Amino acid sequence: MIRILFAAGAARWDTWAPPLRAALDRMGLDYQLAQEMAPEQVDYIVYAPDGDLEDFTPYVRVKAVLSLWAGVEAIIGNRSLTQPLARMVGGGLTEGMVEWVCGHGLRHHLGMDAHIVNPEHAWHWAPAPLATERAVTVLGLGALGTPVAQALAGLGFPVTGWSRRPKAVPGLRCLHGEEGLRAALEGADMVVLLLPDTPATQNLLDAERLSWLSEGAFVINPGRGSLIDDAALLEALDSGRLAHATLDVFREEPLPRDHPFWAHPKVTVTPHVASETRAGPGAEVIAENIRRGEAGEPFLHLVDRTAGY
Amino acid sequence: MIRILFAAGAARWDTWAPPLRAALDRMGLDYQLAQEMAPEQVDYIVYAPDGDLEDFTPYVRVKAVLSLWAGVEAIIGNRSLTQPLARMVGGGLTEGMVEWVCGHGLRHHLGMDAHIVNPEHAWHWAPAPLATERAVTVLGLGALGTPVAQALAGLGFPVTGWSRRPKAVPGLRCLHGEEGLRAALEGADMVVLLLPDTPATQNLLDAERLSWLSEGAFVINPGRGSLIDDAALLEALDSGRLAHATLDVFREEPLPRDHPFWAHPKVTVTPHVASETRAGPGAEVIAENIRRGEAGEPFLHLVDRTAGY
Repeated sequence: MIRILFAAGAARWDTWAPPLRAALDRMGLDYQLAQEMAPEQVDYIVYAPDGDLEDFTPYVRVKAVLSLWAGVEAIIGNRSLTQPLARMVGGGLTEGMVEWVCGHGLRHHLGMDAHIVNPEHAWHWAPAPLATERAVTVLGLGALGTPVAQALAGLGFPVTGWSRRPKAVPGLRCLHGEEGLRAALEGADMVVLLLPDTPATQNLLDAERLSWLSEGAFVINPGRGSLIDDAALLEALDSGRLAHATLDVFREEPLPRDHPFWAHPKVTVTPHVASETRAGPGAEVIAENIRRGEAGEPFLHLVDRTAGY
Repeated sequence: MIRILFAAGAARWDTWAPPLRAALDRMGLDYQLAQEMAPEQVDYIVYAPDGDLEDFTPYVRVKAVLSLWAGVEAIIGNRSLTQPLARMVGGGLTEGMVEWVCGHGLRHHLGMDAHIVNPEHAWHWAPAPLATERAVTVLGLGALGTPVAQALAGLGFPVTGWSRRPKAVPGLRCLHGEEGLRAALEGADMVVLLLPDTPATQNLLDAERLSWLSEGAFVINPGRGSLIDDAALLEALDSGRLAHATLDVFREEPLPRDHPFWAHPKVTVTPHVASETRAGPGAEVIAENIRRGEAGEPFLHLVDRTAGY
């Protein structure tokens, strides 16, 4: 009997329990799944940082903590969590992110806002350039950044992907490291941030690096709020250097009502909706890791706590 | 010496003459390209319906009329035009159309407008469904409809393509004919119109056919204004059956300032910008047809005047 504690928030139980049971049943596992369980009996914890569980110490026989979230910055500071920790990869996260970034990228590319809000009823014929004429840079070539960059390339944009360590992805110009960052940002007409929140990525897009982008560039951030120096971003928008920023993530969420992003005419705020784990495909990812744990196979998507993701 | 008359509007001369010359030079042709020429000497006419040329009778030795436009409904009524007529296919038209339709499709799919215009500064967390959960139907599987449908399928949407005659396109559910039209529209959450303007397509999307779409469906028309019964569309929007219509083409263009589409909260008007021929790639298409004419090879993209496209 495998004992699985669901500690991912009571509000998620009704959505997640049925697909989790269905996925575990399909794997032929003998299990108990519940929201309450004696800690010393628990084998696996299905977890989300916004649930109630804070002290992992009593869970002495847990083989893995399986998070429903892709980001782990709210977890890895927890020193009581010494068990193997897996983050969510897949589970509909990728598809949702690809759709959100392609949608907002094309929105800026096509200049849609001028048609969506057009109180003058102006028939102003000005076709957009083709995507082939608009250079896009994606910062981060991980589980989300790579498919996003490839989808943008599939729409015709010339795409540069940047990562801390060297990577090669078909269809992209790949750059890496500090020296690669400047080349990745220089001449970019649109930049998409899909890096994790780590000490090394704090304010990665600061005033100097924003100045490397093309005149009139667009910034799209569905990654983490901490990746951008907010004050430098506002200054670059106000000075006219940047055309627009569409932001889905913020240092504080919900974004405080008095934050200047809300009322800024060149900022679009979306409420952290770019991507979320869907229970159906997400349950498959969780169940597969439990199957692996029981079969003695290595877990998928284990977090490297030194790197922070 | 091949004599090529440029009769596609004086305003286009500066944009088109250099790439046309470059393309013709690359093909090693001996030619003269000019805006004025004795009619009886002309071998080819580069044409656009909004230029000055109306009477083709004096052009007795013309081998082909090569239009810069994809649509030919403004040309085929001209009885003096008896020479072979080729329309524009390619020339950046396809890429631009794919980008515009994917962009506006994702805009509706993601519910972007609520974030672009959000005067209340509401942090309303409501992620969109995945594209896999949203059925899209593309009416018309021609030179534009087919790549548009495939691009939407590439973004994850389940796509049905409909054409008058049977077609098979990888990745799409293909339906055809009158009986196929009902099946194509029933259950569609989004419909994209990319049919030509012919007697058979007038008001194709009428009140009855609009009623076949899913509750809350989106209509996207970058094809021709005549494809939709405007009054029926407004009624379906007002009754709440349809969520929104984004229209790029109209029976009269520019759309008259008093037309109800302009002020309707569920209609987005774009000023016929979804796609246009770009001089660079368009010049290659024109030059290739001239090369074919001189080599005795069949012309590309000849118009079938009986079918009307």
